[in-house]
Amino acid sequence: MTQQKIYLDYAATTPVDPEVLEAMLPYFSEIFGNPESLHSEGLDAKQALDHARNSCAKSLNCSSSEIIFTGSGTESNNLAIIGTARANKARGNHLITSKIEHPSVLNTFKFLEKEGFKVTYLNVDKEGFVNLSELKNSLTKNTILVSIMFANNEIGVVEPIEEIAKICQKHSILFHTDACQATEYFKLDTKKLGIDLLTINGSKIYGPKGTGILFIKKGTKIESISKGGNQEYGLRAGTHNLPGIIGIARALEISQKNFAKENKKTSLLRDYFIENILKKIPDATLNGPPCHSRESGNLRLPNNINLTIPKIEGKDLLLQLDNFGIAVSTGSACSSGKNDASHVLLAIDLKENFAKSSIRISLGKSTTKKELEYVLEILPKVVQQLKN
Amino acid sequence: MTQQKIYLDYAATTPVDPEVLEAMLPYFSEIFGNPESLHSEGLDAKQALDHARNSCAKSLNCSSSEIIFTGSGTESNNLAIIGTARANKARGNHLITSKIEHPSVLNTFKFLEKEGFKVTYLNVDKEGFVNLSELKNSLTKNTILVSIMFANNEIGVVEPIEEIAKICQKHSILFHTDACQATEYFKLDTKKLGIDLLTINGSKIYGPKGTGILFIKKGTKIESISKGGNQEYGLRAGTHNLPGIIGIARALEISQKNFAKENKKTSLLRDYFIENILKKIPDATLNGPPCHSRESGNLRLPNNINLTIPKIEGKDLLLQLDNFGIAVSTGSACSSGKNDASHVLLAIDLKENFAKSSIRISLGKSTTKKELEYVLEILPKVVQQLKN
Repeated sequence: MTQQKIYLDYAATTPVDPEVLEAMLPYFSEIFGNPESLHSEGLDAKQALDHARNSCAKSLNCSSSEIIFTGSGTESNNLAIIGTARANKARGNHLITSKIEHPSVLNTFKFLEKEGFKVTYLNVDKEGFVNLSELKNSLTKNTILVSIMFANNEIGVVEPIEEIAKICQKHSILFHTDACQATEYFKLDTKKLGIDLLTINGSKIYGPKGTGILFIKKGTKIESISKGGNQEYGLRAGTHNLPGIIGIARALEISQKNFAKENKKTSLLRDYFIENILKKIPDATLNGPPCHSRESGNLRLPNNINLTIPKIEGKDLLLQLDNFGIAVSTGSACSSGKNDASHVLLAIDLKENFAKSSIRISLGKSTTKKELEYVLEILPKVVQQLKN
Repeated sequence: MTQQKIYLDYAATTPVDPEVLEAMLPYFSEIFGNPESLHSEGLDAKQALDHARNSCAKSLNCSSSEIIFTGSGTESNNLAIIGTARANKARGNHLITSKIEHPSVLNTFKFLEKEGFKVTYLNVDKEGFVNLSELKNSLTKNTILVSIMFANNEIGVVEPIEEIAKICQKHSILFHTDACQATEYFKLDTKKLGIDLLTINGSKIYGPKGTGILFIKKGTKIESISKGGNQEYGLRAGTHNLPGIIGIARALEISQKNFAKENKKTSLLRDYFIENILKKIPDATLNGPPCHSRESGNLRLPNNINLTIPKIEGKDLLLQLDNFGIAVSTGSACSSGKNDASHVLLAIDLKENFAKSSIRISLGKSTTKKELEYVLEILPKVVQQLKN
């Protein structure tokens, strides 16, 4: 008997949508030219590249010249933060971010501190929200960049991006947001959001791994961090990964077409699971914000569930669930090698032992109520076994 | 009637080998986990990643911990050069490279000059060879890194890598070589070569675009240039591009299995073409080294033909040949947007007008004598038309 496999770690990575893979396939061995080449094979590739760029621009309501294709969400974050910090150094050396950012943002700011930049790491409240008053109070004449994630990968908190953008605009400070986890569930209208830079990761939206996008608003001063050819308006050197670019463009198009439907469907599943699991495991608590929506969207990512279950180790629980074919995580996949407590959970004021007693369950496009019912049956049993 | 298509720009990029694509396919939507995840889906991905790394280590005769997967040849070159320069700054600030390197090497050294490093750009002779005496004379107590390409992408010159490695070893200086163009035709035995760092590009060896490898000899001091998660021994942050990694590993395996056969077969085609084209276009000259082999391999890449045909523009010739279905280039695809004369051709002492009157014809795995016969028929006619 084959064991049922229930993947609930979509925040770590998603499978490629068959429709996306199909769109990519002709570009491996047939339309394989280098878009920089001047012959027909190059022009065919260039045309496909332009088409993908236009598609992304349409998805994000921006101009195609504002789309940069990169090799990952990490690279987009690195380029956005290092690229603008260095290019705007003459205006000031102060940068602002939050304590709950992804390692590809946090470690980039730590790197810039070594280059002489001063960084303010904003606190968040117990639900994970950045405090806008603290943000305003942190601004100085030397502040050149604010980077706050759209939605957190561990506890699902959705930050007040439009309000932060307004504050930054008012003070002529660049605003970057890492939207890797939000792309699937929110309309990323770059004009309406009012942001200057926005990161998208193909591998989190049913697109190919090894792909990323950085939206850079026209007029933003930024310098490249990779040196070489003049690809991507001189901002990202290296032969274009055309199949990957075709793939991320298609994945973005699908996500931005279906975000409202996916948001609604997934929120309902999330709320069903949370309501029932908290009944079945009375000492469990939900980390992050509550689920009810507010006018401008959700307070919490529709696919995110983060639970603390006291007196068990999150890692033990993960491994036990894996024996039942259920895949969850203890936090960010990018930190899962370490045994440290999550910096996100510590930032929302969880004690270290509680932080280590936590798991993240992240739903996806193909998650069903039946799958969740199975988890609702197994999870309490496994918890009880671990406690005994 | 469909026009015959003859692609002779394999140095710009190669199609993905169907065998390579087949190896990649299960990793898009089936074995799609994040290798950093601890559940079964993550472990399956981790196992595939380890397998690919071991395969590359075998291909390069090194340990698997000496293999770093990156997103491109450009990224490998950036990481090798910036990463070792910064990490070894305490030992000295002098770096050496040649004037004919790829833009991803040259522009990286120019970037490091802004960080305070001193760079010597070695001259080459009229065939493109680095002068070993000049190299020795350039060494100072502050020299920490030498980077010389294995084989040049424009004129096909194969540099004396083992001899350069010996000089560097003697002086305890790190030696990096960009082997992007050489991988297909030479045995890359890292131990025998004696190099410390070596760059491979998937998109030049019938592997996927958006993939690269950097071999880093155990014990080499190097720091990461991308900040984020702890992937790739902390040297390259970002979710692993598993299908890409599977692909480049397979492509490298195939290339290193078949290099001798491909070298011989392609050299014969190259020599056939050169001999005949020089007869048919008497004022044409071959740029780069002669073709006859020496003991340790070739003086010239088996697939490289670079011709100067006076009194015509290389770009015009390229476009006219394209009308006949023949794809060639005027030099590096990474520079083809620009109208400048090739820095490589200027470095071998060609006058600017001669440099601009040049084309590169690069052969590949599926190039046939029949295809070359067609080009031998068309090329002289097109040249005559352009001259009239």
